[in-house]
Amino acid sequence: MRAARFHDQKDIRIEDIERPTAGPDDVLIDVAWCGLCGTDIHEYQEGPIFIPPKGSPHPITGEEAPITLGHEFSGTVAEVGENVTNLKAGQNVVVEPYVIYKEYWDTENYHLTPDQNFIGLAGGGGGLAEQIAVDKHWVHPIPDSISLDEAALIEPLAVAYHAVERSEAKAGDVALVGGAGPIGLLTAAVLKAKGVTTIISELSKKRIETANETGVADHVFNPQEVDVVEEVVKVTDGKGADLGFEATSVDVVLNTLFAAVRKAGVIVNVSIWGHKPEADLATMVTKEQDLRGTIGYYNSHEPSIELVSSGKVDLKPFITHKIALDDLVDKGFDILINHNDTAVKILVSPSGKGLED
Amino acid sequence: MRAARFHDQKDIRIEDIERPTAGPDDVLIDVAWCGLCGTDIHEYQEGPIFIPPKGSPHPITGEEAPITLGHEFSGTVAEVGENVTNLKAGQNVVVEPYVIYKEYWDTENYHLTPDQNFIGLAGGGGGLAEQIAVDKHWVHPIPDSISLDEAALIEPLAVAYHAVERSEAKAGDVALVGGAGPIGLLTAAVLKAKGVTTIISELSKKRIETANETGVADHVFNPQEVDVVEEVVKVTDGKGADLGFEATSVDVVLNTLFAAVRKAGVIVNVSIWGHKPEADLATMVTKEQDLRGTIGYYNSHEPSIELVSSGKVDLKPFITHKIALDDLVDKGFDILINHNDTAVKILVSPSGKGLED
Repeated sequence: MRAARFHDQKDIRIEDIERPTAGPDDVLIDVAWCGLCGTDIHEYQEGPIFIPPKGSPHPITGEEAPITLGHEFSGTVAEVGENVTNLKAGQNVVVEPYVIYKEYWDTENYHLTPDQNFIGLAGGGGGLAEQIAVDKHWVHPIPDSISLDEAALIEPLAVAYHAVERSEAKAGDVALVGGAGPIGLLTAAVLKAKGVTTIISELSKKRIETANETGVADHVFNPQEVDVVEEVVKVTDGKGADLGFEATSVDVVLNTLFAAVRKAGVIVNVSIWGHKPEADLATMVTKEQDLRGTIGYYNSHEPSIELVSSGKVDLKPFITHKIALDDLVDKGFDILINHNDTAVKILVSPSGKGLED
Repeated sequence: MRAARFHDQKDIRIEDIERPTAGPDDVLIDVAWCGLCGTDIHEYQEGPIFIPPKGSPHPITGEEAPITLGHEFSGTVAEVGENVTNLKAGQNVVVEPYVIYKEYWDTENYHLTPDQNFIGLAGGGGGLAEQIAVDKHWVHPIPDSISLDEAALIEPLAVAYHAVERSEAKAGDVALVGGAGPIGLLTAAVLKAKGVTTIISELSKKRIETANETGVADHVFNPQEVDVVEEVVKVTDGKGADLGFEATSVDVVLNTLFAAVRKAGVIVNVSIWGHKPEADLATMVTKEQDLRGTIGYYNSHEPSIELVSSGKVDLKPFITHKIALDDLVDKGFDILINHNDTAVKILVSPSGKGLED
């Protein structure tokens, strides 16, 4: 079958590999759609980061580069192993793509356990291939009301869901989301679904358009045009936002959140920093705020699926491109590297199905 | 009566002012001891910061410089107003030195309300004077088991108590405290009292000695001699500390805490930053830690008094100097500015009583 495999930095190849087979606890999935993620780009441009390099196999999977990529995917069950009773061929599913030692699968904070990594980065196959076999533990069925292209966005939605959980947001709160990239937008979508008044701060005109078109925010402010802190103070009758979400990895955005969030408010850091930001902790301390890290997801797939199936979150507007596997690097990565603000989510069809329409 | 008054930066004068009188809700206190605080030094060297400058009266007190200093003090009730029924002359007391609009006194997080400031900085008299009149709401009686010199340390102990509350520390936890200045040591003392295994990281040889002598830490590590993160990992059997406390305002100490605290652990920032630290938020995010600000105290005086009266915290070892009011600048401030690591807490006797022994 065809698969996109990471061999080394700037060396991703679309090649023919053997089809996976389903072990007794496994679900064999025909991949429908696989989204591209900032992490994939980082691996391509600066990696291997999460990916175990040649000669250093990952302790859980035992695999090393070349590694099949793709961790945001949906598909249809092709076949199930003999111990799989809750799923059957033909059913649509998504995968919570964790690589975790089995003894931790049902423990508290399983997402923070030693050597934790991801399917599609540390081995175990990937969504950028025609098929994948995954232990039933990590496979979540999706109802027919969710289309397979939307379902490929359940994984990044779960990231946003977990970030919002970390904030302890409740209906009636006001949140400022710094950045309208894919995670910022999905975070705003989850917040709106929870009844939170949502404000987005974003520089890029294209992303501001997207934020407005998707309707995930009650207000979108451009810090080049207005003083975002002042605007938030106005919206909240002088009180400041209850919550902030950092989704840019830009120092000034982080510090805008400290300034715009009220005393005893919570700021969740969803972004991954490539540098050490100069953080305005004097403001954080005197306002007695919490700055909370969030990474991945933890029992977040089921509630994320529920948000979509109930109609509270509409994922369709976030799908901006659909491409073939052969176009992964030249088209997909090129857009994300060189025209990043024109895309929210690029979906790849490993089989080529669904591209004709 | 004699009082230390802030006129302007580097202009603190010991002068004669009128004695205060007790209004119907007030308690008139003969000040026994008043501790010097980093805040007082900042006002002297870089102020006015908290202090309302001449021409800009504080909105709650209506006062402006010159302002009587001192907010860490103990004393004996001299007289009570007609509405004060829970206190009587001769009783030993400490003051929770808040300046807060009266409508907020009994609200949640009263310490984070608008224009909040401190007695001894924003007006309302100060502990660096022979007497002070304070509304009964902020006066806490202390039992005879606590001496008046120890009692002057209840205020900074309340700062530490509140910081530890912010961490949600529980018995059996392991905490790393960055810095063995007064607040670091008192934080360690509260942690120990709560059954937390306490590790201090400190560079200064003098402060390491003090930390060892006071017995507030189970381990004291010098980052110039050992790798503190490695030592914490050893102490915790590879797990990392549950909690961290930043009490230095030094970037590398903050980042050591992110590294030494476990996944899903909590770091409390007790220090006030004069600059924006380069914070290792990548580590904070990937370990899904919380960084929590803490400022002042909130219903912390009563439990702090209880920690001392029950013998769980011994404040005596933290009293390193006792001086007269006339020696405030030349002796007290000089030690804190030029020989800071030789002092933990310097107590001033405004009346001169207690200095003979």
